Amino acid sequence: MLSQDGRIKIGIVAPGGRLFPALSERVLELAAGMFPDLPVDIWFHPQCFDSSGHFAGTDAVRAQAFLDVANDDSFHALWFGRGGYGSFRLIETVLPRLKAAANNKIFLGYSDAGAMLGALYHAGIGRIAHGPMPADLNRKGGDDAIRRTLAFLVKGDSAALEPSLDPATPAAAMNMTILSHLIGTPYMPDLAGHVLMLEEVSEPMYRIDRALGQITSTPAVRQVAGIRLGRCSAIPENDPDFGRDEEEVTREWCQRSGIPYLGRADIGHDIDNKIVPFGRWRP
Amino acid sequence: MLSQDGRIKIGIVAPGGRLFPALSERVLELAAGMFPDLPVDIWFHPQCFDSSGHFAGTDAVRAQAFLDVANDDSFHALWFGRGGYGSFRLIETVLPRLKAAANNKIFLGYSDAGAMLGALYHAGIGRIAHGPMPADLNRKGGDDAIRRTLAFLVKGDSAALEPSLDPATPAAAMNMTILSHLIGTPYMPDLAGHVLMLEEVSEPMYRIDRALGQITSTPAVRQVAGIRLGRCSAIPENDPDFGRDEEEVTREWCQRSGIPYLGRADIGHDIDNKIVPFGRWRP
Repeated sequence: MLSQDGRIKIGIVAPGGRLFPALSERVLELAAGMFPDLPVDIWFHPQCFDSSGHFAGTDAVRAQAFLDVANDDSFHALWFGRGGYGSFRLIETVLPRLKAAANNKIFLGYSDAGAMLGALYHAGIGRIAHGPMPADLNRKGGDDAIRRTLAFLVKGDSAALEPSLDPATPAAAMNMTILSHLIGTPYMPDLAGHVLMLEEVSEPMYRIDRALGQITSTPAVRQVAGIRLGRCSAIPENDPDFGRDEEEVTREWCQRSGIPYLGRADIGHDIDNKIVPFGRWRP
Repeated sequence: MLSQDGRIKIGIVAPGGRLFPALSERVLELAAGMFPDLPVDIWFHPQCFDSSGHFAGTDAVRAQAFLDVANDDSFHALWFGRGGYGSFRLIETVLPRLKAAANNKIFLGYSDAGAMLGALYHAGIGRIAHGPMPADLNRKGGDDAIRRTLAFLVKGDSAALEPSLDPATPAAAMNMTILSHLIGTPYMPDLAGHVLMLEEVSEPMYRIDRALGQITSTPAVRQVAGIRLGRCSAIPENDPDFGRDEEEVTREWCQRSGIPYLGRADIGHDIDNKIVPFGRWRP
């Protein structure tokens, strides 16, 4: 896990929305005292602070930043700085340009990052994980999420892992809406035999139901070992009241599609979001 | 186009949200004077006024209403009463139960109805058309949209048709979000060689971009003859400003995917929404 000069380097890029410098300073302060015996370098690519309309820089700038970290052997991990929207736009450019250095690297993020994580997993590149990002420091109590995630990135700390994970069964985790927009594209990962964990944020119940309908109706997804439901938070009011909650509709779509419903998953857009390595994790 | 007893019957069902009786009365009043020489019956299935949480009745009730009209030879057309959300939930139940009576029937609607229309077109059942629905009477000036659509349903009036339609090239029209949620499912129609017209409502620019990214990245969709952009209305503010409008992102995704961008289409969630028959229309 050490680079040639003996340091553990984590590179942060922002394929979606931009970060503010104050946030990066807080991450560095928080990490400063965490690993007294380990030489850990956390580096925010300058692209994180760039801006182009909705995005942290143009597609070309964001793709290049991603490649800068992914293709550099000295980085142990590529950490998505935040979500928002934008990683899907980079897939077509990034995938064919990834080199061997990307293969043993950890790629970690969630929310919009799921599009790129899914595409990397589909391509068999890297060690993919769904989990907290630096922008979670903007949540009250977010420090713990960042500490857990750093301990995982630096030392492989298993305390950060989602508790239902079973070493014998591959897993994957994704935002429902992000997964629904990967379906049918050439970047959709093969999730056969996987426990698929799904979470959502800020979507009304009818959209949660609609995304689950597509996901569970897709023949390839019907090959999963089962679905676990993460938290669906900040659900806007449905007009009229939807009449069912997110667990009821997940159970219903699982039943209709013949997919085992396996219960809840400890993931979501919140500070308790646990880490889900894709596939079978190699510690 | 006449039923056995010489009457032209149009049956209205509501696979998504419910209708209110006052709306159905206005449709009947408006139609009353339109066809003095033709025996036209417009019938609102009682299911339209049913209610079950988000929907106009349970899935079972809505599916049965759809089948009541679709499988009845005396109905010339099945007209979707409104959108909302719900038609995708019925596809799995409805499709295998459709009988020969459905084959020569017009199925007309838009918005959420697009999921069922796409599935019917995929299955080669009926004469599918994207166009105004009774609920458009709730829009200021909606009377004209309803009159045009009735003239099309009853007499095949071509004045209601989308003006760019070319008899030599098959076409299809759909809401972007509805299409994105059909992709990958067993109900996705084959649109190879079609002019695909897309419209959207009430989605921020980043979601329009995200849906277009999926649509144009899907290999089957890349076989279309081209894309025409309908109106994208009531776009909520994007924070930060997206930096591009809906036509710029459509042009960009078309360019990236090698799909010809053919210009604008006269469709949308508004009173000017013109009718787009799927495939090559047989008048």
